[in-house]
Amino acid sequence: MAVISLRRARTMIRKAFEHARGEELKPMAAVVLDAGGNPIAFEREDGASPGRFDIARAKAYGAVMLGMPGSAQMARAEAQAYFIACANGALGGGLVPVPGGVLVKDSKGVVLGAVGVSGDASDNDAAAAKAGIEAAGLAAEV
Amino acid sequence: MAVISLRRARTMIRKAFEHARGEELKPMAAVVLDAGGNPIAFEREDGASPGRFDIARAKAYGAVMLGMPGSAQMARAEAQAYFIACANGALGGGLVPVPGGVLVKDSKGVVLGAVGVSGDASDNDAAAAKAGIEAAGLAAEV
Amino acid sequence: MAVISLRRARTMIRKAFEHARGEELKPMAAVVLDAGGNPIAFEREDGASPGRFDIARAKAYGAVMLGMPGSAQMARAEAQAYFIACANGALGGGLVPVPGGVLVKDSKGVVLGAVGVSGDASDNDAAAAKAGIEAAGLAAEV
Amino acid sequence: MAVISLRRARTMIRKAFEHARGEELKPMAAVVLDAGGNPIAFEREDGASPGRFDIARAKAYGAVMLGMPGSAQMARAEAQAYFIACANGALGGGLVPVPGGVLVKDSKGVVLGAVGVSGDASDNDAAAAKAGIEAAGLAAEV
Repeated sequence: MAVISLRRARTMIRKAFEHARGEELKPMAAVVLDAGGNPIAFEREDGASPGRFDIARAKAYGAVMLGMPGSAQMARAEAQAYFIACANGALGGGLVPVPGGVLVKDSKGVVLGAVGVSGDASDNDAAAAKAGIEAAGLAAEV
Repeated sequence: MAVISLRRARTMIRKAFEHARGEELKPMAAVVLDAGGNPIAFEREDGASPGRFDIARAKAYGAVMLGMPGSAQMARAEAQAYFIACANGALGGGLVPVPGGVLVKDSKGVVLGAVGVSGDASDNDAAAAKAGIEAAGLAAEV
Repeated sequence: MAVISLRRARTMIRKAFEHARGEELKPMAAVVLDAGGNPIAFEREDGASPGRFDIARAKAYGAVMLGMPGSAQMARAEAQAYFIACANGALGGGLVPVPGGVLVKDSKGVVLGAVGVSGDASDNDAAAAKAGIEAAGLAAEV
Repeated sequence: MAVISLRRARTMIRKAFEHARGEELKPMAAVVLDAGGNPIAFEREDGASPGRFDIARAKAYGAVMLGMPGSAQMARAEAQAYFIACANGALGGGLVPVPGGVLVKDSKGVVLGAVGVSGDASDNDAAAAKAGIEAAGLAAEV
């Protein structure tokens, strides 16, 4: 399995922020996690609220640990709230099951990690994450 | 009380995976817990997401600790969400109340432990666990 | 980065147990973690106490997360107890800093994960882990 | 109160890594926290172990929250271990009281945040953090 290099993680974050500035979104935070759920890189734009790290990481953490991007976690939470509530407990309280936790995959579909973005509406966060991942030459599952 | 031997636990996991491969299910993880809720054996198939241990264990843990398989826990969660939420708190956040947590019983109905499976849809997970338990010559309560 | 396949993880555990039986050690538990600290496989021999999973995992978890095998963690704990106590807090209470948490490396020295063994004296646990890792064709840092 | 801009946080991390590469230190992780203890930026060099985020953040967190850099926390731990143990409890288990948690101050001595570095020996970590902070035009209290 390939790993996400720091160089590529930086590209993901910068390009996610470029996307956000182009769309005039609110100040953002973005984190890149490896395939084990541990942080490689994080940045919080000036003006973003201080809890954005925790939210961004939780979006990405759930995506990696469950192999499900934020949109799929949200659908499951809508259909079966207690499942996501309890999965959250089993995973140490580390989930935020909404769009903005985006899987990073290689060309064969192997999960290399995830990007978590938080700052604007969830769908806008997810679009910024996707833009960053694709700019780094990898595939995004939103 | 009889206990689940490691030999039998291995059989349960291997046969659960054989069932999953025969049904072309997604990559799986399966854990066998003893009557005290502690792991005897666990395996995660290549390609299953890293959080599958936590989910599989939580499915089995709730089954053992409450003496209720996942389907019964789910029914209770649907009927009385706060009961499962609070039972989860009382049990250290260790429940995931959906099918896939399957009780292991002897011929007299004594609970010897539970198998937890996670990877595909909950009902498919439960069917894999049941196949594993029965292949080991024990009774499954799904 | 290569990953430890389930096939190889099984080999590590079986060969660790073979070593333990050859040396007439107490009943053992052995876990294999991936490079992110998440379980791939675990087995507990008949007669090993129920908390062995937690101890074995914690030995391996600290090794992966800190990049330090159990012997190095123990040396640090002896020299600077508060460092290991607080690192334990920072890592969610997941460390047991004694021999028996053994790093798994490829031929280039890249950490692929760790094996945690618990059951007998710590040095015997570490020797069993090392035997298992080497039998799987990988390098062990004890 | 002035805040550490993302631009300056990036400079701190890059210059800390440049220092580490110049000194041929082990792969590093560096985090910049604001005056409330929340992350602004983080990077982990390729090859650093996955738990480095947790350790680096804890070094910096204790520095900000107690207003004491890592060396002072270590001195207190040596003199009065129970104080640091209990402060760690009161602060949610978030301390690692050794060098490498370095306060960031403005020209008037106001604490703006902290840099946490982990990867090599604690004193080397602290030197890298100091180099990064000073390269960003701010004062470091090691």
